[in-house]
Amino acid sequence: MSDAAATYVVDPWGLREIGLDMLDPARSESLFALSNGHIGLRGNLDEGEPHGLPGSYLNSVHELRPLPYAEAGYGYPESGQTVINVTNGKLIRLMVDDEPFDVRYGELRSHHRSLDFRQGVLLREAVWESPTGQLTKIVSRRLVSFSQRAVAAICYEVEPIGDPARVVVQSELVANETLPAHRGDPRAAAVLDSPLVPELHLARSTLVELVHVTRHSEIRVAAAMDHIIEGPSTIGVASESEPNAGRVTVTAVLQPGQRLRIVKFLAYGWSQQRSLPALRDQAAAALFAARQTGWDGLLTEQRDYLDAFWKRADVEVDGDAEVQQAVRFALFHVLQAGARAERRAIPAKGLTGPGYDGHAFWDTETYVLPVLTYTVPPAAADALRWRHSTLPLAEERARLLNLRGAAFPWRTINGEECSGYWPAGTAAFHVNADIADAVARYVHITEDYAFEEAVGLELLVKTARLWRSLGHHDLDGRFRIDGVTGPDEYSAITDNNVYTNLMAQRNLRAAADAARRHPERANEFGVDAEETASWRDAAEDMYIPFDEHLGVHPQADGFTGHEIWDFANTRPEQYPLLLHFPYFDLYRKQVVKQADLVLAMQRRGDAFTHEQKVRNFAYYEALTVRDSSLSAAPQAVLATECGHLALAHAYLREAALMDLRDIQRNTGDGLHIASLAGTWIALVEGFGGLRDHSELLSFAPRLSESLSRLAFGLCVRGRHLRVEVTGAQATYTVQEGEAIELAHYGERFRVEPGRPVSLPIPACPPTEQPRQPLHREPRFFVHPPGSRATENE
Amino acid sequence: MSDAAATYVVDPWGLREIGLDMLDPARSESLFALSNGHIGLRGNLDEGEPHGLPGSYLNSVHELRPLPYAEAGYGYPESGQTVINVTNGKLIRLMVDDEPFDVRYGELRSHHRSLDFRQGVLLREAVWESPTGQLTKIVSRRLVSFSQRAVAAICYEVEPIGDPARVVVQSELVANETLPAHRGDPRAAAVLDSPLVPELHLARSTLVELVHVTRHSEIRVAAAMDHIIEGPSTIGVASESEPNAGRVTVTAVLQPGQRLRIVKFLAYGWSQQRSLPALRDQAAAALFAARQTGWDGLLTEQRDYLDAFWKRADVEVDGDAEVQQAVRFALFHVLQAGARAERRAIPAKGLTGPGYDGHAFWDTETYVLPVLTYTVPPAAADALRWRHSTLPLAEERARLLNLRGAAFPWRTINGEECSGYWPAGTAAFHVNADIADAVARYVHITEDYAFEEAVGLELLVKTARLWRSLGHHDLDGRFRIDGVTGPDEYSAITDNNVYTNLMAQRNLRAAADAARRHPERANEFGVDAEETASWRDAAEDMYIPFDEHLGVHPQADGFTGHEIWDFANTRPEQYPLLLHFPYFDLYRKQVVKQADLVLAMQRRGDAFTHEQKVRNFAYYEALTVRDSSLSAAPQAVLATECGHLALAHAYLREAALMDLRDIQRNTGDGLHIASLAGTWIALVEGFGGLRDHSELLSFAPRLSESLSRLAFGLCVRGRHLRVEVTGAQATYTVQEGEAIELAHYGERFRVEPGRPVSLPIPACPPTEQPRQPLHREPRFFVHPPGSRATENE
Repeated sequence: MSDAAATYVVDPWGLREIGLDMLDPARSESLFALSNGHIGLRGNLDEGEPHGLPGSYLNSVHELRPLPYAEAGYGYPESGQTVINVTNGKLIRLMVDDEPFDVRYGELRSHHRSLDFRQGVLLREAVWESPTGQLTKIVSRRLVSFSQRAVAAICYEVEPIGDPARVVVQSELVANETLPAHRGDPRAAAVLDSPLVPELHLARSTLVELVHVTRHSEIRVAAAMDHIIEGPSTIGVASESEPNAGRVTVTAVLQPGQRLRIVKFLAYGWSQQRSLPALRDQAAAALFAARQTGWDGLLTEQRDYLDAFWKRADVEVDGDAEVQQAVRFALFHVLQAGARAERRAIPAKGLTGPGYDGHAFWDTETYVLPVLTYTVPPAAADALRWRHSTLPLAEERARLLNLRGAAFPWRTINGEECSGYWPAGTAAFHVNADIADAVARYVHITEDYAFEEAVGLELLVKTARLWRSLGHHDLDGRFRIDGVTGPDEYSAITDNNVYTNLMAQRNLRAAADAARRHPERANEFGVDAEETASWRDAAEDMYIPFDEHLGVHPQADGFTGHEIWDFANTRPEQYPLLLHFPYFDLYRKQVVKQADLVLAMQRRGDAFTHEQKVRNFAYYEALTVRDSSLSAAPQAVLATECGHLALAHAYLREAALMDLRDIQRNTGDGLHIASLAGTWIALVEGFGGLRDHSELLSFAPRLSESLSRLAFGLCVRGRHLRVEVTGAQATYTVQEGEAIELAHYGERFRVEPGRPVSLPIPACPPTEQPRQPLHREPRFFVHPPGSRATENE
Repeated sequence: MSDAAATYVVDPWGLREIGLDMLDPARSESLFALSNGHIGLRGNLDEGEPHGLPGSYLNSVHELRPLPYAEAGYGYPESGQTVINVTNGKLIRLMVDDEPFDVRYGELRSHHRSLDFRQGVLLREAVWESPTGQLTKIVSRRLVSFSQRAVAAICYEVEPIGDPARVVVQSELVANETLPAHRGDPRAAAVLDSPLVPELHLARSTLVELVHVTRHSEIRVAAAMDHIIEGPSTIGVASESEPNAGRVTVTAVLQPGQRLRIVKFLAYGWSQQRSLPALRDQAAAALFAARQTGWDGLLTEQRDYLDAFWKRADVEVDGDAEVQQAVRFALFHVLQAGARAERRAIPAKGLTGPGYDGHAFWDTETYVLPVLTYTVPPAAADALRWRHSTLPLAEERARLLNLRGAAFPWRTINGEECSGYWPAGTAAFHVNADIADAVARYVHITEDYAFEEAVGLELLVKTARLWRSLGHHDLDGRFRIDGVTGPDEYSAITDNNVYTNLMAQRNLRAAADAARRHPERANEFGVDAEETASWRDAAEDMYIPFDEHLGVHPQADGFTGHEIWDFANTRPEQYPLLLHFPYFDLYRKQVVKQADLVLAMQRRGDAFTHEQKVRNFAYYEALTVRDSSLSAAPQAVLATECGHLALAHAYLREAALMDLRDIQRNTGDGLHIASLAGTWIALVEGFGGLRDHSELLSFAPRLSESLSRLAFGLCVRGRHLRVEVTGAQATYTVQEGEAIELAHYGERFRVEPGRPVSLPIPACPPTEQPRQPLHREPRFFVHPPGSRATENE
């Protein structure tokens, strides 16, 4: 077995690795990461080494670091936040006849890992021949519990083959692990040395506790482990602790076929407020409950949780087995990122790695929350409750920026702005409209008006106030929003970015509508009729630039007059452009990193005619280089709507395989949660044609030639709806709940429970497929129909 | 005498201080700084303390420091340069009967300092009563030689009054002085601790040498001092040295009326290339020559140099005694900054302080070089030779930025870009056109075609290439320059900044013209007819936006559509705005830090109709807050042209008194050399109405009511021209050289040597004076006519 050999099997319900990739272990650590949104454990090997990046994360546990500037300026954030690798409880080291189990030594006869999306368990099976020739079988199962959010568990089994062996298993808790040095890519996390200051350590029988506090951010972290050990009658057990480590050691002599089985329960508690005794108790209580539940109990709870999820949320794709696997992989990881985040942020990488310093961005609201809203609505509500909890900081930031209302941060862990480059950070005010959009969608789809009154309204009001103060009426009465940055990071500080203006328009209207629904609560925020009228006026007068000459919308004022990027003289290895050209040059030319106007057409499709969409899409297709993982999904959605179905399929595959194929070569830093969510978006909003612009949920499904069937589930207003699309027709079924009115290609219809409605899909007129920039054609075109997917790499 | 008492006397030929300002000593240290452009000594007290900021500078001697970024980006400069305080040779400490002379102890009976603009000598006279009651008179004279550029000298005299006294004088050389901590204003210099690494120290008789090398930039600095001592026959002399200090000690017992006189000669040599022995020899040679010349000889040379300067360059102003003093103060300091810089940069602060890290910016070419071109033409040529010497670095920077030709740095000491914030640094490409404009003006005014061929042409060609690659023709055939920053630092990254486009137009044309004059040399740079035609085409097609609706030029595309800054709700203490509002907010609104469109109308007056100038001026007047010292002078020039003469006078006074009154409260960091040059510009281009847009030098003089007469000298094409303006007429005299053709109010006329021509000044039609933003009216309005200048502070 070669050092770098690892094969991933295409499996509809799991991620299966055969062999082990020794050259880039970080990638599989991210792919096999387990999380429930509260705790995250990278897929590190049990024995800790070799590793790409050891990683155990607790949502919001971060350290502070100074943000330096060569030239400082008023209002620049001075302190940044970085997610830290907390006390590692995954470690289980094994010694077989005095030889430490290490896949780099001896011979690894076989090594399989698989992550089962229905069980929520990471299974590892290895057969290892030690340097002295002892054959040993190791099987470990790891889970991070969806049902008990402070808990993870590992079932570790070791069994000698052929000859008896003396085995020693050391189960550890280790704080302040040494991390690999920073790799120089600004997108990777800053490494913080020993961020945890020890406060308490204790070992008693099979239980160990460690309590630390972060040096500057002063977050106290309690970690505890306990064990259930099964095996031959003569087992030795000892435990010990020191400030940064605790260990339970188990030793036994095993006969061939005899097995030592250790179930390790792991619990964490953390807080910036609670005392050391309180946190110790919290972790101990979680640990005790987990031990009482037992390994099998945890497995059952996990399976039950996931069964319910897949029942309402599963997406079936016939005709592209890789996409079938990928969309379930995506849904599983989106669920892991958001399921139990519970009023803490959902970071761009979830809890799978330290990329982007563990920060959450606008893509949580724009990519992840639509998926959660339709599949795990309470998780979407919780994510918005987190934003709501940070309102005081956002209001303070708005004041600092000379604005009213609330200005949410571009990137953050705890709600404070951590962006050290404002033209592509703070200036990207659309994050505020994106939050408002997520609120409006959640309320629209769930009709959870209690949430709207308690949480949503305040978010809508304070973001509407922001827009009202950020924009102004010009001499012609148009409402303009100047000097802001849209989604596309290859433009900055532009006037009247179409995406921003349209999303602000929706924000202003949504705030006025919500205030009308909850007049008393609105009154508490000082909202009166004058103010809501001023929001509606600004929305009505919103200026949307249009280039009459070219017949397309400029991404922002003046954009279409800029020089077009010299794609002909840009070499393939010069992508991503940001690593090879200065922002100065990127900003001033027509080159688009990621869907911006195209995203506007997705999220505000009601603001464009079909002809505009077709012309705009073709125009921006020729300029968009997709240097961001956020681009492919919106492009897939609009490609479908514009009738470019093969192209849509290619973009779907790009979103779907972003991490499975490590397209951006940084999956090792953590998964691209928004791109994973984009897989669902490309399927459901793309081929499924789902739109929620208007009161009525609408569908305009059409499949690419390679696909024979697509089915997906949606939670809508208490119903579980299932939509099944084939080439000829779409079938709408209410699986749970009452009848519902929907729209299919603009025609209103009604679905009763138990009485599916099938409607024909109109033929898609042939269209000329637009061109991408040289060297930036999608890699993953498939050759329809039915032929095996191939790539033009 | 109170601690904070210092009075400045209005003297037409000098700066005279009575008393001593103990609260803000840094300010007078800058005002009394001596320099020849090669060496600069702040006006620190001889005894070193108390001080605001000790400062001895050698042009281009700097240290490197890392430029940090919270979020790094491609092409960001990683290393900055900071001027350093070199080996201090100004120090002369005095002990009187065991009491050290320190103005903070005992009683300072009198303290006068004066800087004589005709002698070029800083005189200090003090009578001090020591804590034990001994009265002593101290007189020191200090000069930095214009004739011997590596040399400074101090004549120090001490004399007891009333009683005999034992005096000990210690004359010192001190390296790595402790500097006050950084004051937190980003405009002030970064403090570098002990930047000088000792290499050699030696003391022999009255001579001391110290050689150091800077730690990172590896610049070797040799400093040497020697002394001539006169006094009673029983004088003791000793000398000693250590790595960072050398000292010559002189002791004598003086009877009342008996004087000890020490002449201290100081010489410096520095180089990044030359060896230690070579530099030692260089400093020793300069020291020996100075000693041979002697104190009186140095005084005579200084006087001769300045007599010649004032003869051709003096500006006489009748009717405003403060401006009369200020313009000579300004000319003296501009001369000090540029006279002997000789192929090194002229920094924004000259060599008077560490402000802006000792960097040179575009204002050298735009403000300082016009003055030098008309008064000390060889100094202007030398400054451009410095730019020429940095062309390889500028070409490398252009390549890095994906551009052709040369991209000169926004701020630098040695030619490398040191701007750590590109939107207001590198993006301000106009610096390249400003350099080209200075080249074109120098050649136009001097007809120095040898310089043009050897130096100017290459600068013009490579900047023209930059513009050709920076701009592009749009679909309508207009040549656009997008995404750049103009002079106004409250806007950034705009399209088609009018100033930039007009200056680029001149640059392109000047390059084509110069290439036609020097075809062979141009050929060496690969210039052919196709290329010059492409420059002329781009210039011809240059897009200059105009707002038809408002009838004014927008500063850049879209500017006039932006929201107008809320001046009504901006409090006086919130200026300068950059310290109280984020750039984000400033950039997106109509608020102007400093003349931008107005500067375009000054430097490219040929591109605007008179009516446009009047409308534009009024429009921008209402938006311009003058948070930059670079603003008042162009506003004075255009105010005059638009007929707002009282306003022009107020702006003239603002430019003139910038440092004398410490208007921006940072004179202590060094003088605002460009604003000082602006005093000349406001007088000569403003009230004198000088323009050099076209072949013929033209004048349109008119005085404010308070002024009765203005006279100024100009070096033009080998002639010394003198222009005298009164309310009714202007008289043009050729003082040296041949006859010349000029224009007066558009009428061509000829002046023969010895035959002055007087021409009438047309009446200025009454105009409505434009308004400034609330709280930003000029402080220095005068009440005409003839009444004493008063201020509306």
